Amino acid sequence: MLKVAVIMGSDSDFPVVSGAVKVLNDFGVEYEAHIMSAHRTPDEAADFAKNASDNGFGVIIAAAGKAAHLAGVLASHTCLPVIGIPMKSSTLDGLDSLLSTVQMPSGIPVATVAVDGAANAALLAVQILALSDAGLMSKFAAYKKKMASDVKKKDEKLADLLKETL
Amino acid sequence: MLKVAVIMGSDSDFPVVSGAVKVLNDFGVEYEAHIMSAHRTPDEAADFAKNASDNGFGVIIAAAGKAAHLAGVLASHTCLPVIGIPMKSSTLDGLDSLLSTVQMPSGIPVATVAVDGAANAALLAVQILALSDAGLMSKFAAYKKKMASDVKKKDEKLADLLKETL
Amino acid sequence: MLKVAVIMGSDSDFPVVSGAVKVLNDFGVEYEAHIMSAHRTPDEAADFAKNASDNGFGVIIAAAGKAAHLAGVLASHTCLPVIGIPMKSSTLDGLDSLLSTVQMPSGIPVATVAVDGAANAALLAVQILALSDAGLMSKFAAYKKKMASDVKKKDEKLADLLKETL
Amino acid sequence: MLKVAVIMGSDSDFPVVSGAVKVLNDFGVEYEAHIMSAHRTPDEAADFAKNASDNGFGVIIAAAGKAAHLAGVLASHTCLPVIGIPMKSSTLDGLDSLLSTVQMPSGIPVATVAVDGAANAALLAVQILALSDAGLMSKFAAYKKKMASDVKKKDEKLADLLKETL
Amino acid sequence: MLKVAVIMGSDSDFPVVSGAVKVLNDFGVEYEAHIMSAHRTPDEAADFAKNASDNGFGVIIAAAGKAAHLAGVLASHTCLPVIGIPMKSSTLDGLDSLLSTVQMPSGIPVATVAVDGAANAALLAVQILALSDAGLMSKFAAYKKKMASDVKKKDEKLADLLKETL
Amino acid sequence: MLKVAVIMGSDSDFPVVSGAVKVLNDFGVEYEAHIMSAHRTPDEAADFAKNASDNGFGVIIAAAGKAAHLAGVLASHTCLPVIGIPMKSSTLDGLDSLLSTVQMPSGIPVATVAVDGAANAALLAVQILALSDAGLMSKFAAYKKKMASDVKKKDEKLADLLKETL
Amino acid sequence: MLKVAVIMGSDSDFPVVSGAVKVLNDFGVEYEAHIMSAHRTPDEAADFAKNASDNGFGVIIAAAGKAAHLAGVLASHTCLPVIGIPMKSSTLDGLDSLLSTVQMPSGIPVATVAVDGAANAALLAVQILALSDAGLMSKFAAYKKKMASDVKKKDEKLADLLKETL
Amino acid sequence: MLKVAVIMGSDSDFPVVSGAVKVLNDFGVEYEAHIMSAHRTPDEAADFAKNASDNGFGVIIAAAGKAAHLAGVLASHTCLPVIGIPMKSSTLDGLDSLLSTVQMPSGIPVATVAVDGAANAALLAVQILALSDAGLMSKFAAYKKKMASDVKKKDEKLADLLKETL
Repeated sequence: MLKVAVIMGSDSDFPVVSGAVKVLNDFGVEYEAHIMSAHRTPDEAADFAKNASDNGFGVIIAAAGKAAHLAGVLASHTCLPVIGIPMKSSTLDGLDSLLSTVQMPSGIPVATVAVDGAANAALLAVQILALSDAGLMSKFAAYKKKMASDVKKKDEKLADLLKETL
Repeated sequence: MLKVAVIMGSDSDFPVVSGAVKVLNDFGVEYEAHIMSAHRTPDEAADFAKNASDNGFGVIIAAAGKAAHLAGVLASHTCLPVIGIPMKSSTLDGLDSLLSTVQMPSGIPVATVAVDGAANAALLAVQILALSDAGLMSKFAAYKKKMASDVKKKDEKLADLLKETL
Repeated sequence: MLKVAVIMGSDSDFPVVSGAVKVLNDFGVEYEAHIMSAHRTPDEAADFAKNASDNGFGVIIAAAGKAAHLAGVLASHTCLPVIGIPMKSSTLDGLDSLLSTVQMPSGIPVATVAVDGAANAALLAVQILALSDAGLMSKFAAYKKKMASDVKKKDEKLADLLKETL
Repeated sequence: MLKVAVIMGSDSDFPVVSGAVKVLNDFGVEYEAHIMSAHRTPDEAADFAKNASDNGFGVIIAAAGKAAHLAGVLASHTCLPVIGIPMKSSTLDGLDSLLSTVQMPSGIPVATVAVDGAANAALLAVQILALSDAGLMSKFAAYKKKMASDVKKKDEKLADLLKETL
Repeated sequence: MLKVAVIMGSDSDFPVVSGAVKVLNDFGVEYEAHIMSAHRTPDEAADFAKNASDNGFGVIIAAAGKAAHLAGVLASHTCLPVIGIPMKSSTLDGLDSLLSTVQMPSGIPVATVAVDGAANAALLAVQILALSDAGLMSKFAAYKKKMASDVKKKDEKLADLLKETL
Repeated sequence: MLKVAVIMGSDSDFPVVSGAVKVLNDFGVEYEAHIMSAHRTPDEAADFAKNASDNGFGVIIAAAGKAAHLAGVLASHTCLPVIGIPMKSSTLDGLDSLLSTVQMPSGIPVATVAVDGAANAALLAVQILALSDAGLMSKFAAYKKKMASDVKKKDEKLADLLKETL
Repeated sequence: MLKVAVIMGSDSDFPVVSGAVKVLNDFGVEYEAHIMSAHRTPDEAADFAKNASDNGFGVIIAAAGKAAHLAGVLASHTCLPVIGIPMKSSTLDGLDSLLSTVQMPSGIPVATVAVDGAANAALLAVQILALSDAGLMSKFAAYKKKMASDVKKKDEKLADLLKETL
Repeated sequence: MLKVAVIMGSDSDFPVVSGAVKVLNDFGVEYEAHIMSAHRTPDEAADFAKNASDNGFGVIIAAAGKAAHLAGVLASHTCLPVIGIPMKSSTLDGLDSLLSTVQMPSGIPVATVAVDGAANAALLAVQILALSDAGLMSKFAAYKKKMASDVKKKDEKLADLLKETL
């Protein structure tokens, strides 16, 4: 089975990015997590991306903030699909990260999820890998059902919540 | 081989979205293109998404503008990966489409590309399908090489361009 | 009398949305509140909207954040007027929700109020229902008068406040 | 039957706002159109709003650009529901009009539609009036069906369009 | 001597707007402060503006947030210069207030200061009144000198601050 | 009578700024127009501002685009009220000019009008000067009345316009 | 004398970037211009940056649009100062390029100029090189003087322009 | 050796700007820090800039918030390269400062770093001075290597962090 690489630009991204790792764990998808910086360790990032396919990876998830180049840099060095998580930083509320990640030029796409959308990045990786793994696809279908039934349970409890509030 | 669905919200999106169709054609990927609206034909869109996997699709590309819900609506009804193209409309320069497409809630990712990034949406679909199709992966690798060599050729001609200009 | 439906995308929206419920309560308007998600429970949301008119509803209020599709999805499945409350979420300060809610394509309007404007959503529903309910219209007129007199009372106390401050 | 007032802040708004008038015409809804400015003719605007209900109006549509106060000014003087159309002007791409129209303070809602969304403003007025007019509701339901069937027809022609393009 | 009116849309604006009152106090400029809402007490606001000149006012300062119409509404009813303070509210970081205040249509200017710029609104009023009051102009010139000398004193202490820090 | 200075940062601003000059002309207000740049001729700009009061000016209007420092620079060197016109430039639609002009720090206000709001800048100068010039105040009151009657005339012609259109 | 490298991400950037080349030409600064893409030719870009200092370059200017990573990628591979020109592209008016270029993480600065600010990028390079080249510093000082005198000449002609216009 | 000037617009900027001073200290670069305001002490700022080169400075760093004119004002009075730090203030999240600093008109560049990017401003100054100081260039190269090795160490510890978290 193809592995997922979860790359974050800085250890300060870990609290958010761990949400992606948790999803991969829950789905039993093999992964490797690394801290690599497009700007501080560009050669390591390039090498990782160039060899990712040979090293058994199928999808790369990259999380970075501000002028978030990490996903784009990795995408430039690999043929694998790259998923970008724009990280909210201390200024500009994540708009800088979002635009830096999603507005890729023609030829080198980055599959971008919401600002700080770590869980969705992992779920997207699961959906991609599930195309050739029927078991994983079943798990994802079950996950969607559970999500729906959780909403319905909350809906049922809303009446009580309303009584308390009003 | 899994097919790609290319869904656009309106026929006015066709001039941009045809860029995605052209890429799929060039890579020899089977596709079906449709006009379906999240708001005007919501049942048709839901039905298409629910049956997409059974009908042989592997990836869905959805292009929409303004309050661009199409990709999200399709994603809510399928387990397949959904790629969103935010379309620039007559106001707000595509920012509305981008945020409506990318800022999906946890559980239902949409793999978002740049505003009007139709070619990249198709290339991302190719990358996803190529994970289980070595021939397609080779084509994509060749495409990347050609793209690089095209840049180098343009670089070589730059000297002449400079002479003319200065 | 026609009822108002108050639909929220997630239970995390409740603290804000309860402001709408409170207004409906105060005006003696019948309502039903539900948690339904455009993305996690799309079929439930569609069914609710399709049957809303037959089930005695006259207006639907929908609150959602981020790529806020809930109001648009409901509007696509009903002929009733739909009021959208864009919810501020943890990033982008509600701009994503606002644009996702208000920028609806031609044919499917959503009557959008301010970000987190739950009370105004309910007041708008009251204004709409009051068109065929003279008693409700009187209550609304009284509400407007009280609001004005509250401002005047605060204005009268301002002189004291100024003395303390300076 | 209650009439709809269509108020625009300037005659330069007419080319867009006429889209609302056309919809009302098509639905056979009685209306009156006026040019009134929140800033240049504030007393006329206030008088109109104060007497709108007595003069047989049920809904007021207001279109204005830039610091678009017209809808809010009218709403402050009437109990009728007011629908706001933010008009795109020569700078800032309509964002100024949108925020000036939609971000109303608690107590005085404006039902805001998309930037330049004149047709939707009229459709929203139709939906509101249709709550107490079964014939109008049937017309609106038929309109929605036609809209859906138009999309389906365009979808059927897409195959031909694709053949020409590729 | 002409008085300054300081009008705020809500008592919640007082903590910021009191900064304007304090400046007027310090300069010995006569003023009156009021809470009036463009939307909740529109007639009171219009009456105040219409009579402001006859009542001895020379400048009106108006502070409001969100869809901040107060300054524009007052300006529409008076020939006096009106200064607008856009108030930051809980969402959108004051951008809504700023655009609603500053983007006035041709014919009805509002002299807009920075978001939450209450002190500057009062200083601008002082500058305007000082044009026909040499004593006030001297005070303003002295204020500017003191401001400059305060900066220089802080600059002199910076060396010590640096020593502590490094 | 005090004169108005109309300063623009570049001759490319003239087509818009001439709108201010025209208003001053119409009101019979004496003015002087100059091209001075905060960045290219900073000493000339500083000298002009320092001597403006002694040279008979009462108000300074400054128009500049992009990182629009001109109004702020002039304000830093004079006690006279300074009115800023943010000019739309080729990128960012005037948002850069607006924020650079309006967001002045405490102590040095700039009375900012709308992006490209040249006429309003001149009208604001007229309102300021009219505080000590009853004749000018009468002219301004007449201007407001004419503006209102122009709107009413256009309103009367709207019925004809509608007939042609529908 | 150290050379300046002018790197652009695409030949479509040439019409704007040629403005930088022209300035370098005028100042007699040696330069080399290249087309290199952070995403399409990442290895070539990395190699160029790694060897830039050894190849006699002192400053690198990089121009790119959308998710503009070029300047950051070059900066990650060199110790030389890198100047970034954010290029306006077909959507989002250059905001994406600006944020992608300027919001660099701590450790890897990019000296960013205005959107499409090609001439300023070259002038900044001149200023940097002039620190160790007195002749170049004199030329830059002369350039500033000429710029000032050009403004003054335009100011002198403004009176004539005004006469024609009014 | 040329000195670096670190100018901040207000003492409230010190906590952020001290990050620049610390970097200069670490690199052994001589500097002088000052508080000077483009608006409150414009003459002092102009004088400082005019004499900066004669006083042994090679680079000027300027930090300011809101309508951040400081860097531009200094640049207008010197031939030295000026580096601008846009400071985040209490509203608009630094976007005002960023645009006011970076969007300089042609002829007067400001080398702009990220919002609150004080360390990067100092590093950029180091890179500029290092062009004619081989020892400083070596230190900068060592700094880059250490930065890379720090990232690698953090990457090595990530496995442990993951174990604790999951």
